[in-house]
Amino acid sequence: MRISLRGQPVPEDTDPRIIDGKAIANALLADLAREVAALIETGQPVPGLAVVLVGDDPASQVYVRSKARQTVAVGMRSFEHRLPATVTEDALLTVIDRLNADPAVDGILVQLPLPRPLDAARILDRIDPAKDVDGFHVVNAGRLSAGLDAPVPCTPLGCLLLLRQAVGALSGLHAVIVGRSNIVGKPLAQVLLRENCTVTIAHSRTRDLAALCRQADILVAAVGQAGLIRGDWVKPGATVIDVGINRIPTADGRTRLVGDVAFDEALAVADRITPVPGGVGPMTIACLLRNTLAAAAARRGAAHGL
Amino acid sequence: MRISLRGQPVPEDTDPRIIDGKAIANALLADLAREVAALIETGQPVPGLAVVLVGDDPASQVYVRSKARQTVAVGMRSFEHRLPATVTEDALLTVIDRLNADPAVDGILVQLPLPRPLDAARILDRIDPAKDVDGFHVVNAGRLSAGLDAPVPCTPLGCLLLLRQAVGALSGLHAVIVGRSNIVGKPLAQVLLRENCTVTIAHSRTRDLAALCRQADILVAAVGQAGLIRGDWVKPGATVIDVGINRIPTADGRTRLVGDVAFDEALAVADRITPVPGGVGPMTIACLLRNTLAAAAARRGAAHGL
Repeated sequence: MRISLRGQPVPEDTDPRIIDGKAIANALLADLAREVAALIETGQPVPGLAVVLVGDDPASQVYVRSKARQTVAVGMRSFEHRLPATVTEDALLTVIDRLNADPAVDGILVQLPLPRPLDAARILDRIDPAKDVDGFHVVNAGRLSAGLDAPVPCTPLGCLLLLRQAVGALSGLHAVIVGRSNIVGKPLAQVLLRENCTVTIAHSRTRDLAALCRQADILVAAVGQAGLIRGDWVKPGATVIDVGINRIPTADGRTRLVGDVAFDEALAVADRITPVPGGVGPMTIACLLRNTLAAAAARRGAAHGL
Repeated sequence: MRISLRGQPVPEDTDPRIIDGKAIANALLADLAREVAALIETGQPVPGLAVVLVGDDPASQVYVRSKARQTVAVGMRSFEHRLPATVTEDALLTVIDRLNADPAVDGILVQLPLPRPLDAARILDRIDPAKDVDGFHVVNAGRLSAGLDAPVPCTPLGCLLLLRQAVGALSGLHAVIVGRSNIVGKPLAQVLLRENCTVTIAHSRTRDLAALCRQADILVAAVGQAGLIRGDWVKPGATVIDVGINRIPTADGRTRLVGDVAFDEALAVADRITPVPGGVGPMTIACLLRNTLAAAAARRGAAHGL
């Protein structure tokens, strides 16, 4: 436990080295609520987000409920479409087509994973790219990689916003991203390249990962391996973004969430670090709503301040 | 000058450290000619490549002529469409639409740069992605970045084929790519990531570029700055791919082509290196024809051996 100058124990979440994702996400949500109100005040229709949930995966149900609650909390409309796990691909595509054509819907999110044998790539690519608030449509992935205007997938966007808060200007910094998934590692590489970072993408085949990580001014872990990144892999003064969310058993027979970074070790070396939970996680839904507002403003030809 | 074991001077182009792009391209062209012949022998129509040239840029005219000659040399049909620099965007789009619909055309290439005020992005995105043999369509860029089957742009594909010849298995090697253009650096990063390389993308904002380059097992220079990469930036044993083509004045008042790498310096350190000219350059048209054959085979539902 850390002790303050006045001899009081400092609660962990006020350690200035720990990036408070929850507070930053809440500030973003408050900004979004203001922007939504301003848009509506100009006489524009209320922005709307449609979430499509197929099947009854319990984790997906929790996410969808949370998304709906926060969508409404910032003043947007939330539309939920629940379909049985047995839905045919054609029926699901028909739902997407209807949402594409619906003027009240600015953003469409299909909750992943989809039950088999549904073809997620085919279904996601049916979404109108202008309503693709997850940024997973192949056209938007292509636009992002070409440096064109495109929605940034929510988790990489959350990482970027945390980095801007924690670091400020990113130009010239060396970012090492461990993990090359289509939803985090690869789009984040595009985004940090656009910010003029030097970008290295590492993965399971990388040789001497520790030495590579030690070069990073910005170290991003997005692999899903609890505690993979050790303290001595972190360069003193680096900023560490931990995207991993891993559930591990504890001594008392329960479980807890940890990231891909050995947090206490890294905290002793890093300049700034995101905790798990409470770091990148809270940013994801806020960024989804940010993408939804941006899509709504674009469809209305309106400006917004984000 | 190097001296062979038998005391004879060795001509530079037989130095085994110099990757002979011309020979590798010629071998690829010979393979392509065999594949085209085999496809036609099964009763399939002759593959065809359409090249659209707008305006009278002399360099573009040379490229287009060379492409047409090599297209015919491997047994394919070449269609040239020449349009005045004053052509309207709509008229150009109509030409693209016609080529998209033409069953004799398997590949469409719009020669860049386009004269102003034509919008290259809009025109390239009008090409049917299945006929996009340059791999510049936003859908194909997105598919490549998502790890899906997609045509690889010709210059990065040429780099990959040279690396496979020169190095063999690429998995686990650290590739440092200097340059982040949409036509070379960024797609090459995707391709080398797919080959399980650790990939670093460096650029003009990169700090201590020399130290970064010295870590590379594979060093790719694609920036267009004559001799930027010095010999002491190369790790002993590295493979160097020089994509740069720069025309510089010589002492006698003429000009010559050089790459982005200080060739003689790097040759003393590298294990393998591409020369300029005669390295990556000759691969580019061969790779265009490879993409055309692949597109033709895919449209016919036929297999090919490439």
